[in-house]
Amino acid sequence: MDKVKVIMCGLGAMGSGMAKMILDKKGIEIVAAVDSSENKIGKDLGEVLGINSNLKIIVSGNFEETINKTKADIVILAIDSFVKNVYPYIKHIVQNKINCITIAEEMAYPYTADKDLAEEMNKLAKENNVTILGTGVNPGFVLDTLIITLSAACRKVQSITASRVNDLSPFGTTVMKTQGVGTTVEDFEKGIKDGTIVGHIGFKQSIPMIAKALGIEIDEIIETREPIVSNTYRETPYVKVEPGMVAGCAHIGYGMRNGKPVITLEHPQQIHPESEGVDTGDYIFIKGDPDMHLSIKPETPGGIGTMAVAVNMIPQVIASSAGLKTMVDLPIPHAIENGFNDAVKYYKEGDNE
Amino acid sequence: MDKVKVIMCGLGAMGSGMAKMILDKKGIEIVAAVDSSENKIGKDLGEVLGINSNLKIIVSGNFEETINKTKADIVILAIDSFVKNVYPYIKHIVQNKINCITIAEEMAYPYTADKDLAEEMNKLAKENNVTILGTGVNPGFVLDTLIITLSAACRKVQSITASRVNDLSPFGTTVMKTQGVGTTVEDFEKGIKDGTIVGHIGFKQSIPMIAKALGIEIDEIIETREPIVSNTYRETPYVKVEPGMVAGCAHIGYGMRNGKPVITLEHPQQIHPESEGVDTGDYIFIKGDPDMHLSIKPETPGGIGTMAVAVNMIPQVIASSAGLKTMVDLPIPHAIENGFNDAVKYYKEGDNE
Repeated sequence: MDKVKVIMCGLGAMGSGMAKMILDKKGIEIVAAVDSSENKIGKDLGEVLGINSNLKIIVSGNFEETINKTKADIVILAIDSFVKNVYPYIKHIVQNKINCITIAEEMAYPYTADKDLAEEMNKLAKENNVTILGTGVNPGFVLDTLIITLSAACRKVQSITASRVNDLSPFGTTVMKTQGVGTTVEDFEKGIKDGTIVGHIGFKQSIPMIAKALGIEIDEIIETREPIVSNTYRETPYVKVEPGMVAGCAHIGYGMRNGKPVITLEHPQQIHPESEGVDTGDYIFIKGDPDMHLSIKPETPGGIGTMAVAVNMIPQVIASSAGLKTMVDLPIPHAIENGFNDAVKYYKEGDNE
Repeated sequence: MDKVKVIMCGLGAMGSGMAKMILDKKGIEIVAAVDSSENKIGKDLGEVLGINSNLKIIVSGNFEETINKTKADIVILAIDSFVKNVYPYIKHIVQNKINCITIAEEMAYPYTADKDLAEEMNKLAKENNVTILGTGVNPGFVLDTLIITLSAACRKVQSITASRVNDLSPFGTTVMKTQGVGTTVEDFEKGIKDGTIVGHIGFKQSIPMIAKALGIEIDEIIETREPIVSNTYRETPYVKVEPGMVAGCAHIGYGMRNGKPVITLEHPQQIHPESEGVDTGDYIFIKGDPDMHLSIKPETPGGIGTMAVAVNMIPQVIASSAGLKTMVDLPIPHAIENGFNDAVKYYKEGDNE
């Protein structure tokens, strides 16, 4: 089989990272790249990625033209977090009969954010015989796929509590602002109210994805965002946090049934959690028959994890039946050390030997 | 959709446990049961399961007749560990156009034990438009499916080391004998040579399953079985172990490439590991980009885990395309709290909302 042909759409931190990952893999090639940034358009992709090698792929600023004229198996779309913003792009990709993986958080389970658009995308994908998947490290992996998979060892599941404790220290000013790091408690509360401090985007995707897969009924999803007030002095190149100021955002999502939480997902994000003895990690507790306690320490890395999960799902998406899919619908995810084209062939033919 | 109809074949500890689990679930029913034991044949299944309720299902001793005359969606086959022994049963089930899940360990990846029979089963399943799956807690889940799933967060995988440390204390005399518990070191070595002490059945399935999924080449699989010599006095209702005697079997499987292990799976099984400070648990370490460290403590329970994984995979197997499948080929496993028939419908229709 020919190499898998990929169009990269969006060359920010995640898009660039995925492009580099793909360049390092076998049986797969980038055939075009698009970005909206003036300082990337017209340059060779190798230069934009800073890999000091001419790839003979000129980054285009014209998304529609690139999709229309390029023969490809899949588009990797890394431009935005929200269903309504990626929808026009996905529509155009699908109408050109190309599969699409996006890391837009809301697309991991788009039915909550916009049921009508989700159904429209499912219809379009089926009409054009291609597949759409939203994925990433979280939503897409740690607080949904892993929990769902772990539950397979349970005869019964009564409730789920999981926590992803990470360290925001490596991130830049945008993340510091959207998580409220370095603000006063008053400014944090104000930021939550006016929507400038958002915390994690993913609970409204991960919770219904788990509930749907396991057949757990939930009435509503409640989210709380509290400031993590520091008792210590913490500092990164981008922010300084004095004791009494906010070091991060403790964001919790509750999937409620009859007034009680049945699925609780916690994602406290802060800089230098170790300064107050907080261990980073991914922790899953399933209360059921049997109880299950899983931990990943340190936590699954955010950036690399998103790049890896999205790129590693390419074969399953290309080989899948048509439609808008979630991680629940596709064969189990995994790393790929041999050819991506071999992996596609494997899933298409369904033979093990 | 009608309830999922199941034939239980084999009512030992695992078969009985799966039958009880199914009786406790929605949208699924047992329509027939078969066993070879004279003290079960002719009795009502409820009596055999000790659940004090008449199920109006008489346990049959005639496998072929039961399969021939019963309309069912799937057979749960729990009679044996080896491909060659379950093959005639699977053949008959498949020729009657019924899907099959078996907990026979070698069937988790049957190509190692008998490539010809595996290919024959794949052909038969396709001809009859049904699906065959071998699964269980291990092989089937802990030391393969979980490892494969975890690798999805990695851009690269260099090597894998995983360990399942469990406690054999709840098991009876058969397990004590096949693991060499209570023997002298000399008798342990003799038992390994004459095949009466076998350790774990599963490394020759889990290692190629991981290697195949991730595209890691291996040249050969080496297994070592060492006695776990006790320094303490250990006792269960079935066995007594004096210091200096064997408390269990430390069984290791190595997937080798160019003389070096790339996949190392360890499964030390012993009674009362806590008496020498050994923590039970499932531990996975992936060396790659990034490294991943996962632990489940205490370990995923063996018996319940096998029942749960096998029963929970029923919807994915019924809805799957035809053929002999492994856990790598099917949508991610998970517990099911609502109707099994709803879950089948979900996978068949592929719609999320």
